Amino acid sequence: MIIIMKSHVADSEIAAVEKKLQAMGMGANVSRGIERTVIGAIGDERKMDKEALEALPGVENVVRVMKPYKIVSRESHAEDSIIDVRGIKIGGKTIQIIAGPCSVETQPQMDSAAQSVAAAGCRLMRGGAFKPRSSPYTFQGVGVEGLDMFQKAASKHKLPIVTELMDVRMLDTFLEHKVDVIQIGTRNMQNFDLLKEVGRIQTPVILKRGMSATISEWLMAAEYIAAGGNHNIIFCERGVRSFETYYRNMLDVTAIPVLKRETHLPVIIDPSHAGGKAWMVPALSRAAIAAGADGLLIEMHPTPAEAWCDADQALTPQELMTLMGELRGIAQVIGRDLG
Amino acid sequence: MIIIMKSHVADSEIAAVEKKLQAMGMGANVSRGIERTVIGAIGDERKMDKEALEALPGVENVVRVMKPYKIVSRESHAEDSIIDVRGIKIGGKTIQIIAGPCSVETQPQMDSAAQSVAAAGCRLMRGGAFKPRSSPYTFQGVGVEGLDMFQKAASKHKLPIVTELMDVRMLDTFLEHKVDVIQIGTRNMQNFDLLKEVGRIQTPVILKRGMSATISEWLMAAEYIAAGGNHNIIFCERGVRSFETYYRNMLDVTAIPVLKRETHLPVIIDPSHAGGKAWMVPALSRAAIAAGADGLLIEMHPTPAEAWCDADQALTPQELMTLMGELRGIAQVIGRDLG
Amino acid sequence: MIIIMKSHVADSEIAAVEKKLQAMGMGANVSRGIERTVIGAIGDERKMDKEALEALPGVENVVRVMKPYKIVSRESHAEDSIIDVRGIKIGGKTIQIIAGPCSVETQPQMDSAAQSVAAAGCRLMRGGAFKPRSSPYTFQGVGVEGLDMFQKAASKHKLPIVTELMDVRMLDTFLEHKVDVIQIGTRNMQNFDLLKEVGRIQTPVILKRGMSATISEWLMAAEYIAAGGNHNIIFCERGVRSFETYYRNMLDVTAIPVLKRETHLPVIIDPSHAGGKAWMVPALSRAAIAAGADGLLIEMHPTPAEAWCDADQALTPQELMTLMGELRGIAQVIGRDLG
Amino acid sequence: MIIIMKSHVADSEIAAVEKKLQAMGMGANVSRGIERTVIGAIGDERKMDKEALEALPGVENVVRVMKPYKIVSRESHAEDSIIDVRGIKIGGKTIQIIAGPCSVETQPQMDSAAQSVAAAGCRLMRGGAFKPRSSPYTFQGVGVEGLDMFQKAASKHKLPIVTELMDVRMLDTFLEHKVDVIQIGTRNMQNFDLLKEVGRIQTPVILKRGMSATISEWLMAAEYIAAGGNHNIIFCERGVRSFETYYRNMLDVTAIPVLKRETHLPVIIDPSHAGGKAWMVPALSRAAIAAGADGLLIEMHPTPAEAWCDADQALTPQELMTLMGELRGIAQVIGRDLG
Repeated sequence: MIIIMKSHVADSEIAAVEKKLQAMGMGANVSRGIERTVIGAIGDERKMDKEALEALPGVENVVRVMKPYKIVSRESHAEDSIIDVRGIKIGGKTIQIIAGPCSVETQPQMDSAAQSVAAAGCRLMRGGAFKPRSSPYTFQGVGVEGLDMFQKAASKHKLPIVTELMDVRMLDTFLEHKVDVIQIGTRNMQNFDLLKEVGRIQTPVILKRGMSATISEWLMAAEYIAAGGNHNIIFCERGVRSFETYYRNMLDVTAIPVLKRETHLPVIIDPSHAGGKAWMVPALSRAAIAAGADGLLIEMHPTPAEAWCDADQALTPQELMTLMGELRGIAQVIGRDLG
Repeated sequence: MIIIMKSHVADSEIAAVEKKLQAMGMGANVSRGIERTVIGAIGDERKMDKEALEALPGVENVVRVMKPYKIVSRESHAEDSIIDVRGIKIGGKTIQIIAGPCSVETQPQMDSAAQSVAAAGCRLMRGGAFKPRSSPYTFQGVGVEGLDMFQKAASKHKLPIVTELMDVRMLDTFLEHKVDVIQIGTRNMQNFDLLKEVGRIQTPVILKRGMSATISEWLMAAEYIAAGGNHNIIFCERGVRSFETYYRNMLDVTAIPVLKRETHLPVIIDPSHAGGKAWMVPALSRAAIAAGADGLLIEMHPTPAEAWCDADQALTPQELMTLMGELRGIAQVIGRDLG
Repeated sequence: MIIIMKSHVADSEIAAVEKKLQAMGMGANVSRGIERTVIGAIGDERKMDKEALEALPGVENVVRVMKPYKIVSRESHAEDSIIDVRGIKIGGKTIQIIAGPCSVETQPQMDSAAQSVAAAGCRLMRGGAFKPRSSPYTFQGVGVEGLDMFQKAASKHKLPIVTELMDVRMLDTFLEHKVDVIQIGTRNMQNFDLLKEVGRIQTPVILKRGMSATISEWLMAAEYIAAGGNHNIIFCERGVRSFETYYRNMLDVTAIPVLKRETHLPVIIDPSHAGGKAWMVPALSRAAIAAGADGLLIEMHPTPAEAWCDADQALTPQELMTLMGELRGIAQVIGRDLG
Repeated sequence: MIIIMKSHVADSEIAAVEKKLQAMGMGANVSRGIERTVIGAIGDERKMDKEALEALPGVENVVRVMKPYKIVSRESHAEDSIIDVRGIKIGGKTIQIIAGPCSVETQPQMDSAAQSVAAAGCRLMRGGAFKPRSSPYTFQGVGVEGLDMFQKAASKHKLPIVTELMDVRMLDTFLEHKVDVIQIGTRNMQNFDLLKEVGRIQTPVILKRGMSATISEWLMAAEYIAAGGNHNIIFCERGVRSFETYYRNMLDVTAIPVLKRETHLPVIIDPSHAGGKAWMVPALSRAAIAAGADGLLIEMHPTPAEAWCDADQALTPQELMTLMGELRGIAQVIGRDLG
């Protein structure tokens, strides 16, 4: 940590910073320049609050030198981590496309969806039994029985299932229903108690980025899970909030190369929630794969216009199949293949 | 709801919209213009997903006509609601300043803080026993025993206590410790299961705005609480995420007149988390009161530089006292008084 | 235009809206619903200010039905427009990569750069003689003589030149120096007098998106140029302002499919100014082409570390050549080729 | 400037940074820590591009130690600067309210407006003869003759006039018409050629903040004017772009205390363009004055509903008069008075 002092700083103010650092168990290296005095703090800054230093008189600014994240950082683990989901690898050379409906509706709907997911060549399936909805007056998901329908439909095609956990009290139920991958949604990225709980198990977790979370905050949210012992974490960018009103969220495609540099964990993209319209999904999907994503989380519905939620963003089975062909071509160009 | 069709729309597409509306239990009023055909949907649009209509071929855009929120809306309840916290009124003519430290640390710290809060003329006290921290490696709050310390310190001065609930499983503990006002933090504004639970009790709830929540989403989050039966809701604006890096969050002062127009519920401001620096707090506090806020949630610490978290944003007891004088003056100018 | 009235609207208020519309030369179609009265305005809404209607008592909201842009809209011209720059086509099946240094520095630097641009297979060259810099104390560009150096270097390889016009008073100089494509920078996207002037000539214009311009504002800025008679407009997305601090701007990759839907004009991407770091450029470039961009504007410098500005974002000649190979592969997958 | 090196840095990389600094005329102070090597650059960093250092291998991050702005900074001039506009002081103890219509329309409209501005107790008048409009198809201002109408109306009441300059070629005309204060609009904040030109004269300049300009970029834009010799600069915050759609722009009230700390120049607020609705203006105006603004720029129209632009945001003469009373009260509370 580097403490930059104000221009006309008193010796006593410098001494107070040194004393504070000492109390924090850190050493201090004072460098008196012509324009500014700068103090380098020596020791593990991860446990330190920079605010405690910024509160001292004469301090202009405090700059971190180390990354605040540790277990999830590329610095601590240079090789790419590969997450194994019942034999299917996420994060290696092979790109995985996870497809399925926004929400579990009925057994026939899930059966039909699973059939189309498998037919398109996807190896994992998504679907929500519990839905975070802006309005308390709209469909909230079919609940626990949705997990049954989902497993029944997916197991016929040996598709591991990915579904969202919103309430920490439902974790045991998720484990009983053998959910293969637990999704933590954008609204819960900093629900720290939930993160701590999924950190205690070994089920792979897809951690979606918060609505306006910085990449650093997102990595720190993952660090909460990792610090508990669960290192099976997959980052999922799903668009962030912006001033643009034409589409729902702004897909942050730059987050892909940035995360691949900062963390060893896999990175996937949800193009459906990003744009919010089915016609945008193919372009965003191709962009994500071309930029280096390890996979996609795509909404597909047997009959989109009849979907119980987000009807306008689901692909048809046919559209998914066509898209898979394009993605396969792009994967090849960059030396990868499709799952 | 108004459905705007694309410019060269087919009759069959118009018919399909009418049929879909019918299936949703709504009537349809088709208006064929020269440039565009527009369909008005007749009925209660609050339970409708506009996405289901936007997914239909030929639909350009769907515009809501009614507010999506109901119980919390000014339309449904014209008079200002006043929330009663052990005899102290929030939302009426009297402005309430809620002050106290960021986090509960020790009994002497809380005793000293409570003493200063009361001496400054504030009638409620804040303090966190559970802290949502970006890093798993920093101080996470003292936990349940913090509630004891808090109550002990506050009760000497008859100050009702305000503290944050992060984990739905702690609600009973909060009730046992007779927490007077439950704060739902910015990271949990759309933790819908938590909202539903605090909707089942009658304890007043301060609902902080999400990091980048629109005012409409915020009102809908409150509607989740209200729909459960708890109408004792206080909105708290605490700054939103922006591109500016000079300070922590951008205080959305415009949200004050907007909320006073849209809802009958009280609106308070947290100037400490907005700016993130103690020296910004007086200016932001005065602005909030001048703009019509019903109260403030301010951080004050007996010795800010020694605070265990957010040391740089707490006022000293003396600074709080001085600020109270200015706020009293402004309250008077706009026909109000200070609690 | 649709005028949505407040819930308890008076007949006189409805009549006043009708009268106002009449004064504006529009017809009115009043539709009295149970919850709301809605008035449809009949006529050309493009010349109308919706504010004039929103100012009337009893009006809740005014919604546009037509697109505010006309000449540049896909609605008015269904086919893709192809811009011809000395025989090189932008906007058709062939993707064009425009490369070159951030700024013109010296004749040898430009000669070397032109050589590398041509060797990589790019068919147009970029370079700035006038630079918009945040600080008045840093390098502002070499000025007019830079145009000479640029033309001299580029002409050896028959590369048309692309360079930024900042000051309306320099337009004649640009024409005298036979600048092939005039770039309007992000800070001047709404410099309406400059837009009007380049609208009077026929030189192709690259119109960069403003720092936080909505897609609609951007299309309207192009409409200023088009309304003057110059339809040779190329849109260039270069990243927008966001809350993320890891990189310089957030590349809005979704803008590509959106613009391809809304306008017939070509769309290119500047991955260098978006990320702001050379190591991000390949991933962003691949994403842009995969998403359907018609070209790229890339910074390349013979020796990046010695560049006079933006040294950290320029590719080396070798990196550009490698990237071109990848882009060629992706172009092929989506049925296009590289210029 | 502080150069933070990557964790496993080579000696040759450190040496290259030292060499680069030397070439830039700076000294270097290398500090080898356990986790990181940090290099302090010694000398005037204002003329340096940090990108030139960030481009070097082994460099993780470069942090500025000095403020990039100089003449406009509080560091260089501790006392508040007071701008004199024909005897009326902006920036001192007295707060100035500048009122008037969005645009100059007709002589009677301006006469009536001037009369109301003076009657309300305001001492300067605003009005636009040239209007920056998003659409080329809407009213663009009455042009030069508007300056005549404006002067004629204002001079009867000895009101200095404030009007926007969009085109650098109109500067002489503005000087001939004795415009008292030149306004640089939000879209031109980084029109550097325009800034340089108004830097060459002594007419006071109101510099509006760019749509999404950081405070630092805004201060640097002012530095462009100041570096030319014109130190008569007034900052005007007018709301910034955000994700919120309820109102037009988000008023950044925090910018007031921040600017008062960073610069000695006056700071005013435009509450009309911020919210975009007349009913929001009183609350925002009171907030701005309470937060420490030196003045306001308010839209008032004799008959708002008939205004030729921004009809929904203008106050009536009566509303302005009422507001002035409230502002006077708040000014008094914070030890100031109204002009």
